[in-house]
Amino acid sequence: MKAITLLGSTGSIGTQTLDIVATHPDRFELVGIAAGNNVELLAQQVRQFKPKIVAIRNSEKLPQLREAIADLDPQPEILAGEDGVIEVARYGHAEAVVTGIVGCAGLLPTLAAIEAGKDIALANKETLIAGGPVVNPLLEKHGVKLLPADSEHSAIFQCLQGVPEAGLKRIILTASGGAFRDWPVERLSEVTVADAITHPNWSMGRKITVDSATLMNKGLEVIEAHYLFGLDYDDIDIVVHPQSIIHSLIELQDTSVLAQLGWPDMRLPLLYSLSYPERIPTPLEPFDLVKAGDLTFREPDHQKYPCMELAYQAGREGGSMTAVLNAANEQAVALFLDEQVQFLDIPRLIERVCDRHRAQNKATPSLDDILAADDWARQAVREAAESLTAKTVLA
Amino acid sequence: MKAITLLGSTGSIGTQTLDIVATHPDRFELVGIAAGNNVELLAQQVRQFKPKIVAIRNSEKLPQLREAIADLDPQPEILAGEDGVIEVARYGHAEAVVTGIVGCAGLLPTLAAIEAGKDIALANKETLIAGGPVVNPLLEKHGVKLLPADSEHSAIFQCLQGVPEAGLKRIILTASGGAFRDWPVERLSEVTVADAITHPNWSMGRKITVDSATLMNKGLEVIEAHYLFGLDYDDIDIVVHPQSIIHSLIELQDTSVLAQLGWPDMRLPLLYSLSYPERIPTPLEPFDLVKAGDLTFREPDHQKYPCMELAYQAGREGGSMTAVLNAANEQAVALFLDEQVQFLDIPRLIERVCDRHRAQNKATPSLDDILAADDWARQAVREAAESLTAKTVLA
Repeated sequence: MKAITLLGSTGSIGTQTLDIVATHPDRFELVGIAAGNNVELLAQQVRQFKPKIVAIRNSEKLPQLREAIADLDPQPEILAGEDGVIEVARYGHAEAVVTGIVGCAGLLPTLAAIEAGKDIALANKETLIAGGPVVNPLLEKHGVKLLPADSEHSAIFQCLQGVPEAGLKRIILTASGGAFRDWPVERLSEVTVADAITHPNWSMGRKITVDSATLMNKGLEVIEAHYLFGLDYDDIDIVVHPQSIIHSLIELQDTSVLAQLGWPDMRLPLLYSLSYPERIPTPLEPFDLVKAGDLTFREPDHQKYPCMELAYQAGREGGSMTAVLNAANEQAVALFLDEQVQFLDIPRLIERVCDRHRAQNKATPSLDDILAADDWARQAVREAAESLTAKTVLA
Repeated sequence: MKAITLLGSTGSIGTQTLDIVATHPDRFELVGIAAGNNVELLAQQVRQFKPKIVAIRNSEKLPQLREAIADLDPQPEILAGEDGVIEVARYGHAEAVVTGIVGCAGLLPTLAAIEAGKDIALANKETLIAGGPVVNPLLEKHGVKLLPADSEHSAIFQCLQGVPEAGLKRIILTASGGAFRDWPVERLSEVTVADAITHPNWSMGRKITVDSATLMNKGLEVIEAHYLFGLDYDDIDIVVHPQSIIHSLIELQDTSVLAQLGWPDMRLPLLYSLSYPERIPTPLEPFDLVKAGDLTFREPDHQKYPCMELAYQAGREGGSMTAVLNAANEQAVALFLDEQVQFLDIPRLIERVCDRHRAQNKATPSLDDILAADDWARQAVREAAESLTAKTVLA
């Protein structure tokens, strides 16, 4: 029985993790849980899984949470705010923490969990994209394993089992191509929010679905792969694979290529991040190659999707630049979802803000540097967006 | 530097193995070599690689071999006949033996190599298909590794690295579909030898190419996979994949599927069987998923290709039945290549002979039982072919 803690329990990753816990009650015990805002769902989850500790990030919802589970006996420890989430991340006898918090909000709790010696089932990209320069040394210091729980990095991690030191040559991340893969580039200026939040293959949150439509998602994964697997950016490639059946591939020194395949279902990588190194029988639908149909591949279109190149560039510059890229993207996507900027403004805003950061980029940033860069980038995007809007009005 | 011995040096596997040795002179040293008949090519290979021991299986060619390399100084030890090949297989300080001998002729030398404690790079299917019941206990006794050097089993073996005990659920062997994959079943009665020895993807010997056209090749691989990886026949599947890019797949207990991909080039699995567990840089053409084009899959047609089902049946019956299946197939294919029987007679002859063996099948055969079953099956096929011809004449 493995005791686990779940951060971000009401999101897409969170609910799928709980589905796994519910399916394998003999394997996994949920001892801690934290969510952001959705107090109704969180209360329901606490009733079902009976964790020992629970936190709601939005402190204003604490009374509502208390009330919703007041009849439970015994009562779990109930906390609120970012400090509350961090308490859950560090909680007692949990062996692993699933970090399903979207965005940079996941960074501090994940660092707390690492410092408490918990293995991390990582579904929060930003931990490495923003925090890579501080996370990697910390993992080593605390002897903690970072187990990728998203489909692409899990695929690579799965393929890498048994590959000897220095055997890896190249990583090939597959990309579905997102919502607009079959749209001509000219039409991208017409994209609405409704268009952008519909993903062809995966069921995910809104922010990540937009990232998938801009292919920034893949750019961010390139940076994450760099920190997870230690390869140079020249050795991390992207290939568009519309069916999302091959979840990613590795090329070895002798030219052999290994791939991990399956239905597009987040529960499989989540399960492996918890069961690792074991492979446990599970009632997920068995994969069927014939039913999966034809598998096709094409080069990504860097002109149509400038976010990929922005990510490679930020990754190569390193330091706090990837934190800036990530924060700028989060802010730009939020403005797009709020209909304050256009779809094509997203890369423009990010590029502008990265350009501004270049002179200040620190090669080996501290956590404070990273958090400051993150704050600054969000503010810089908002300013840039205002000037963009002002210009549009002038034009 | 790894000292290796090569059996069957003038065939397709042999020449490709030597290509690897020539490419990696810092890694591999050829110390022993044996071939069947092709004395000119063998002599040339001896000149190039300077092994310490050489054998020609056809004893009549011994004088010709001696003469062809008479000027070499120092002279290698020169032997002939099956005993000579066996001497090479056992030779002194070789760490690994590549068994590239086609057919049942490879069995005795391979057993000799195992008894001498050499690891086996296995490109000879028959070692396990006929010899499985005696080979597996011998491997354990001598602590010898059997490293598959054919593309399908190497793919499975590569995918299995890092998979924990009991993690494997199913093996999926890919089949190109052979020369007649796009022919309607009605036309198979018209197949000529020239049609059958042209393979769409792989460059191989004539016998194996016919096996590929009947899909017996895949049936034999199913049996080999059973002995190599210890799975039940119900857990070994075949899927037709015309492009031969995914060389085979494994399904794990948690439904995850791992695959090995690459260009159809035997040198890669051969190299890995020699470099294992290392992955060494090599000048083979890097794989390119986009260039590989669309990957397609379909269920194999058991009605069109009855050899597959014959192989599953023989495998399930076990004992000496797989030796009979293999010998009957070798003999039937030889008669077809000699234009004495039709393409569609191949499965008919095999089925008839397996049916006759059923009552005599021994569950745990000795090596003598296996060799006797092999002899008997060849004779039985020749008799059945004669009665077939007689009937055709009568009809």
